[in-house]
Amino acid sequence: MIMENISSNKMFGGWHKQYTHNSSVLNCEMRFAIFLPPQANDKPVPVLYWLSGLTCTDENFMQKAGAQRVAAELGMAIVCPDTSPRGEGVPDDAHAAYDFGLGAGFYINATVEPWAKHYQMYDYVIDELPKLIAQHFPVTEQKAIAGHSMGGHGALTIALKNPGMFVSASAFSPICHPTQCPWGQKAFEGYLGLDREQWKLHDTVELIKSGATPLPMKVDQGEADNFLVEQLMPESLVAVAAQSDFPLDYQSHPGYDHSYFFIASFIEEHLRFHWQYL
Amino acid sequence: MIMENISSNKMFGGWHKQYTHNSSVLNCEMRFAIFLPPQANDKPVPVLYWLSGLTCTDENFMQKAGAQRVAAELGMAIVCPDTSPRGEGVPDDAHAAYDFGLGAGFYINATVEPWAKHYQMYDYVIDELPKLIAQHFPVTEQKAIAGHSMGGHGALTIALKNPGMFVSASAFSPICHPTQCPWGQKAFEGYLGLDREQWKLHDTVELIKSGATPLPMKVDQGEADNFLVEQLMPESLVAVAAQSDFPLDYQSHPGYDHSYFFIASFIEEHLRFHWQYL
Repeated sequence: MIMENISSNKMFGGWHKQYTHNSSVLNCEMRFAIFLPPQANDKPVPVLYWLSGLTCTDENFMQKAGAQRVAAELGMAIVCPDTSPRGEGVPDDAHAAYDFGLGAGFYINATVEPWAKHYQMYDYVIDELPKLIAQHFPVTEQKAIAGHSMGGHGALTIALKNPGMFVSASAFSPICHPTQCPWGQKAFEGYLGLDREQWKLHDTVELIKSGATPLPMKVDQGEADNFLVEQLMPESLVAVAAQSDFPLDYQSHPGYDHSYFFIASFIEEHLRFHWQYL
Repeated sequence: MIMENISSNKMFGGWHKQYTHNSSVLNCEMRFAIFLPPQANDKPVPVLYWLSGLTCTDENFMQKAGAQRVAAELGMAIVCPDTSPRGEGVPDDAHAAYDFGLGAGFYINATVEPWAKHYQMYDYVIDELPKLIAQHFPVTEQKAIAGHSMGGHGALTIALKNPGMFVSASAFSPICHPTQCPWGQKAFEGYLGLDREQWKLHDTVELIKSGATPLPMKVDQGEADNFLVEQLMPESLVAVAAQSDFPLDYQSHPGYDHSYFFIASFIEEHLRFHWQYL
């Protein structure tokens, strides 16, 4: 696979870099960002994959979360993919809605046209992107996964559906139960069609309920989050984890909202959480 | 003065807030951001003023620098003004250039029309804004000042021109000698006219050369900065500080560029530098 380096910025002794490449899974050119800690100069390092939320690209987390400071201390690479396929020929929502189409791939493989040709973010994240990273960068096979909101949903479901692929999973303000909230229902109906049994295969609560293999999981949620009640439904995750004896470290934070100001405040804890297992 | 709170985000136990107010100095509505650390709930805290660079608003530093983590630890407020007057009726460069007009106030008082009516950023930063902050927030009279690029020029010159107003000054990649570089010459000719003696009153190198009262000063510069040679000229600052026995802590960093990735990497050192004097 051909990859082009389009930016490089030294940061905390390591490097933040952006690349474009032709994705055969998504049938378009994709961009991703990687932070390589200074330790990567000497030896392969483990990777944290970060999946962003609705409307984001590879840039939001890298510019706003402040994660590189701790990643540089620990010796952890961070990889941020985009949140959907992009570019000419990739269809968008008819009304350019922020919660479907571009910027809203939901980390699933669409089965309904016109989305199925490009919207295959699940395969991109579990297969094509990690292969590309392993081929081009000094990384070990050890991987953890984390994300925010739609990307929190992506991180948790992808980890649960692929036992052994990630040592740990974490999320800020994840869409915990997408089959039961407006964002998830709109996306799943659009990308997957009307068979709700297919939807359940990409729902964190449903996956734990149906006996997914446990892995260390950490979720942080702000109590002043505008989307808390209608879209995120963390109480359903807490309940099913308790019923299933699933190892969930759930923290609720008074006053914090859905923004990157919340993520920045607690990202250090997430990196150190994953580092225990990497 | 009437002020309107337009956003509030909890962050590191404190609050990031944005306000708008009518500026009588700038003759327009202005926006600024403030970070109040958790300690401000119990007692007044000192303030670091941050002046941003060309094209920025109050948001760049607050979203990208990661400064709030250390400010929350130390108990320091941070105030970020905009970089120029804004809004309807405020003239911009005829070609909407990024280095003159909107987003490029250079922290001076324009004397040439049509700029003089609004472009009075010097008075705004030293007088109107601090009064507004003191009136509405739990702050002490202790102040430090810092900035980046055009804002580094602003921070250093404003501190030098107002002995005793700030306990310390620091800058990332400042325009050290604006009378001798294209950015500075364009701005000073536009805002101040052709009298180069007036220009020298807003030039860090010239101010130190002419005997400005010393204060603790820290400057960090990336060696891979695209603007280093033509626009920033730190070697002239280092030379005049040495000649004048001026207390300058200058650090040059191989590989770092002009971006916020550089600022994020060293902002902690700047906050701890100022904290020694606050």
